[in-house]
Amino acid sequence: MQFTSEQRLDDGVLEREFTLGEIPGTLWTPGSAPAPLILMAHNNGLPKGEPRLVARARHCAANGYAVAAIDAPGGGDRPRSAAAEQARADLRRAMQAGEPVDEIFESFIGPLVEKAVPEWRTTLDALLSLPEIGGPVGYSGWTAVGVRLAVVEPRIAAAGFFAGGYVPRAQREEARQVTIPLLFLLQWDDEGNPRQRALDLFDAFGSKEKTLHANMGGHVGTPWFELEDGGRFYDRHLK
Amino acid sequence: MQFTSEQRLDDGVLEREFTLGEIPGTLWTPGSAPAPLILMAHNNGLPKGEPRLVARARHCAANGYAVAAIDAPGGGDRPRSAAAEQARADLRRAMQAGEPVDEIFESFIGPLVEKAVPEWRTTLDALLSLPEIGGPVGYSGWTAVGVRLAVVEPRIAAAGFFAGGYVPRAQREEARQVTIPLLFLLQWDDEGNPRQRALDLFDAFGSKEKTLHANMGGHVGTPWFELEDGGRFYDRHLK
Repeated sequence: MQFTSEQRLDDGVLEREFTLGEIPGTLWTPGSAPAPLILMAHNNGLPKGEPRLVARARHCAANGYAVAAIDAPGGGDRPRSAAAEQARADLRRAMQAGEPVDEIFESFIGPLVEKAVPEWRTTLDALLSLPEIGGPVGYSGWTAVGVRLAVVEPRIAAAGFFAGGYVPRAQREEARQVTIPLLFLLQWDDEGNPRQRALDLFDAFGSKEKTLHANMGGHVGTPWFELEDGGRFYDRHLK
Repeated sequence: MQFTSEQRLDDGVLEREFTLGEIPGTLWTPGSAPAPLILMAHNNGLPKGEPRLVARARHCAANGYAVAAIDAPGGGDRPRSAAAEQARADLRRAMQAGEPVDEIFESFIGPLVEKAVPEWRTTLDALLSLPEIGGPVGYSGWTAVGVRLAVVEPRIAAAGFFAGGYVPRAQREEARQVTIPLLFLLQWDDEGNPRQRALDLFDAFGSKEKTLHANMGGHVGTPWFELEDGGRFYDRHLK
């Protein structure tokens, strides 16, 4: 893990860019060490530098967590793949035409999850070797990757998933194997993400402790107080 | 409003029994005054002295709220009505036999809501005349009474409803007239309270700000952290 730049934020949080082999990432660490860790992944492979993700990560680090984000293969600062670019173009065209998009999502997001999960595990290994990071480890964000990680990675102790994003059939099927405490965040009128599918997924998770928070509005309308509610969820399980 | 007994709890909360005409009630007030007020009603007219309601009320008062509970007509410390007793017996028999219970609930809860709501308004008038109670006013608990109150009583500024309890058709129909901020608390596997009906009710509320919290388990299994989440909901809207 090579750190390539760093800046100290006003609230004492240290924000560092890193590379780990081909993987570019950002690590936020609080003043106090060793800190519990949250892996923060953006739905459908959106870039780690996306302002809403960065704002969430900084808020979380200011509350005493180390937070890490990485770019998924083909996204953010990473080389584009022709197949992924084609899938994105197909998606845009199908959405504009009002055509079904499930099979396009499946062909695009399914392989992306398969590639992203081992990279998250490699990143987790590297992060946990840093003296400023302790444990336990939580996960936040991208549901499909989080489901797969929670199934294969015993070091993930609790997870907050955002329902707005395509979840491949493989992850919908293995949801019942997820048994860690979950907070599942749903936007009630999320355009393009069917509500019933999200409710079915919440129902399917195998966790004894799982909580659904649903709020009004579309995909990006999650109210600010959910950031604080999420913080208390992690505090209960990781501190 | 006549106070008939009082005790000071360890955390400084004053707990007083009162009568207001035929209505018996309990008022909890915090050390500091004037306090915002929460009207706390138990689903389906369960008694104000029920231990879980009392625990919630004391917790809430310790956080700086005046809290009031009253017994609904025919319940708690009030004279039983032959009709209500018959309906309760019919309900038990129908539930044991696995027969449909909607029409029995409708004939029992519908009139109870009609009688309880004016009593809550009378109680609210009396409470707001006390110097130790300021405003604004919130509501907590029994959904059916809360829907009706929120529609007819402009002094109710925010409400937390518990989904576990029969909501008469009249209140399901007027749910879209409710426009105040809501927190709707659902037990995902609440025996005897169909989940889909609760989700439909959440969908129907007219409020722009409404949040659903769903947790695992049966009717009485709400996790303790929802009490704190509820407190923060009221803090956002009443303090």
